[in-house]
Amino acid sequence: MIFLDNSATTKPESAVLSAFTEVNNTYWGNPSSSNGFGEQAEQLLTRARKQVADILGAESSEIIFTAGATESNNIAIKGIAMRYQNRGKHLIVSATEHPSVSVPMEQLQKVGFDVTILPVNQNGHISVTDVKNAMRDDTILVSIMHVNNETGAVQPIAEIGQIVRAYPKAFFHVDGVQGFGKVPLDIVDSSVDLYSLSAHKFNGIKGTGILYIKSGILIEPIIAGGSQERKLRSGTVNVAGAVTVAKAMRIATDKLAHQVHQLKGLQLRFYEEISRLPETIMNTPSIGCAPHIVNFSIPAVNTEVFMRMLEEKQIYLSTTSACSSKMKSVSKVVQAMGKSEAIAGSTVRVSLCYETTESELMVALETIKSSIVRLSEVGK
Amino acid sequence: MIFLDNSATTKPESAVLSAFTEVNNTYWGNPSSSNGFGEQAEQLLTRARKQVADILGAESSEIIFTAGATESNNIAIKGIAMRYQNRGKHLIVSATEHPSVSVPMEQLQKVGFDVTILPVNQNGHISVTDVKNAMRDDTILVSIMHVNNETGAVQPIAEIGQIVRAYPKAFFHVDGVQGFGKVPLDIVDSSVDLYSLSAHKFNGIKGTGILYIKSGILIEPIIAGGSQERKLRSGTVNVAGAVTVAKAMRIATDKLAHQVHQLKGLQLRFYEEISRLPETIMNTPSIGCAPHIVNFSIPAVNTEVFMRMLEEKQIYLSTTSACSSKMKSVSKVVQAMGKSEAIAGSTVRVSLCYETTESELMVALETIKSSIVRLSEVGK
Repeated sequence: MIFLDNSATTKPESAVLSAFTEVNNTYWGNPSSSNGFGEQAEQLLTRARKQVADILGAESSEIIFTAGATESNNIAIKGIAMRYQNRGKHLIVSATEHPSVSVPMEQLQKVGFDVTILPVNQNGHISVTDVKNAMRDDTILVSIMHVNNETGAVQPIAEIGQIVRAYPKAFFHVDGVQGFGKVPLDIVDSSVDLYSLSAHKFNGIKGTGILYIKSGILIEPIIAGGSQERKLRSGTVNVAGAVTVAKAMRIATDKLAHQVHQLKGLQLRFYEEISRLPETIMNTPSIGCAPHIVNFSIPAVNTEVFMRMLEEKQIYLSTTSACSSKMKSVSKVVQAMGKSEAIAGSTVRVSLCYETTESELMVALETIKSSIVRLSEVGK
Repeated sequence: MIFLDNSATTKPESAVLSAFTEVNNTYWGNPSSSNGFGEQAEQLLTRARKQVADILGAESSEIIFTAGATESNNIAIKGIAMRYQNRGKHLIVSATEHPSVSVPMEQLQKVGFDVTILPVNQNGHISVTDVKNAMRDDTILVSIMHVNNETGAVQPIAEIGQIVRAYPKAFFHVDGVQGFGKVPLDIVDSSVDLYSLSAHKFNGIKGTGILYIKSGILIEPIIAGGSQERKLRSGTVNVAGAVTVAKAMRIATDKLAHQVHQLKGLQLRFYEEISRLPETIMNTPSIGCAPHIVNFSIPAVNTEVFMRMLEEKQIYLSTTSACSSKMKSVSKVVQAMGKSEAIAGSTVRVSLCYETTESELMVALETIKSSIVRLSEVGK
């Protein structure tokens, strides 16, 4: 198998899986229990929280463990909106956010919040000036993703953070899912107030993630109950999951430090070869993109047949993002970049990981090229 | 270790853990991906959902996977309240619900819902007549737990279901966490509309659970995004987690069928011995209780010192429920049963599992008895 759908999910690291099993076999107590067996579990949880905080340059008390970034995004956005609605009801978001940001925004719009949706340019980037112009006295939240999940476009988080910081009533939330371990980001320096991650995007396991909430910020919890995670996310904490999040983050950080140039090199070579084909239109920008995603459109080709053709050779990629790919819709992200429905309806996403080898990628490249040529002939 | 805190959490079955590892090693695709590798994961998810549905006598489409019962309870209660508030804003709940039910109810009260809290009698049971009398034309939800997490008191779910059924505008939610695998319950016959479970309470892993939502019922999602789980709970599905939920439910159902008499026998013997001590007051009712919990108070004893004394012998139990035990508060459940603060402030919960052996329990019993005698002497 040549797996090139790493933006949808990644193979869990074996060290992550063995840590999960070990905690569940030996330290399976409930960290909320006041007895000594529960306390052993709590010690592991405390250590995992500290490790996550250290990696992000944050304090332990600023980290809560969740079941993934969709939950983190919902907690952050709805939690801020509900808690601070007396300050104002204006929210700012980009046109290319993941559904776990855009759908909560739509839900809030229905209950009376005013949402400004910022456009992106043809490269998928939002303009810092647009953010500046959109800010109002009643703005309480700006939510902008770090790296786009379909195209890999990197947004100017530090610059946006600087703008939001000038509005003391407004908070800045960043969906960091596709960026972590791929594109460096100092959330503290960038004045990020809330930051969401899903560990299964960087070789952790599904059902685990975190939300960073800067000290002093209050949110109304959407999952309330036994007061775990500083009352912000109740429910018995998945201690083994938390331990694996810390481990996966450490491994990903290490890869970012030592292997990103190699990843970038592979991506660049693939990008250039694909962009040279007359049948392709590139959706990933050549500048300001993450090192693991190459998104392009093939309007003359039936992408479903194309996908099946590659699958016969055990090459897996995706046509749009995993979350919406089953709906056979056109890519809203690519449409927001001002491209036609024919282009937005024929996107292909190739997403690499640090384990992707040059030979794998070259096999995939040749198969992709020959399939495109063959299928575009059919379409003529 | 003699672990008698099984109502807080349980040891994951080794078959559950190996299934988790196997899925993550081999079928780690994203079930929402449209490629063939994602489809393999989706097939596993479909099978797990069918297994869960079959065990509950439900349809696959009625099951959504969650991160646990706290999330399930929040989705059910807030989801129904928000979706059906135009029908009415009256909610009914018992005085002894778990915080993951009572806190969401408080949150809804703050935004204009009218919540009736039903009392319990001295055994911790609610009265069916009280439910009948509380029902109004604007009642949209009744939420009653199956088995109380502190005392093991079993509520009359089937009878309550019959009452709620007569009100077509009202739905019936049951927090089934402590009952599943311990006390038989036919949710379909009992007219249960929504039913929550956490797998770590019956030897599954933390961070997994389900919510049953009867066909035709709509809810406003609190975790919105990529439309997974019929749009009711977005986020990449933890397929390995779902597989283990199904497996843990099957194993627990099997134990309920074949080993519950033995468990009940152990509980009864322990109950009788403890109730015979002059220092104890029983909080678990002698009739209408689950087979795995014995809760009693020792007002003349410092329960913290008592706990530490047992822990020196590696015997683990709890003083109140895990979720609130760190807050050193008196038991609201026992207070609701009309007992004094001295009694509600000195509760001890011993909770068994199917693996608890007679010899383990007898060792624990003798240690508990001698510790109580010793510590009550100190208090005199």
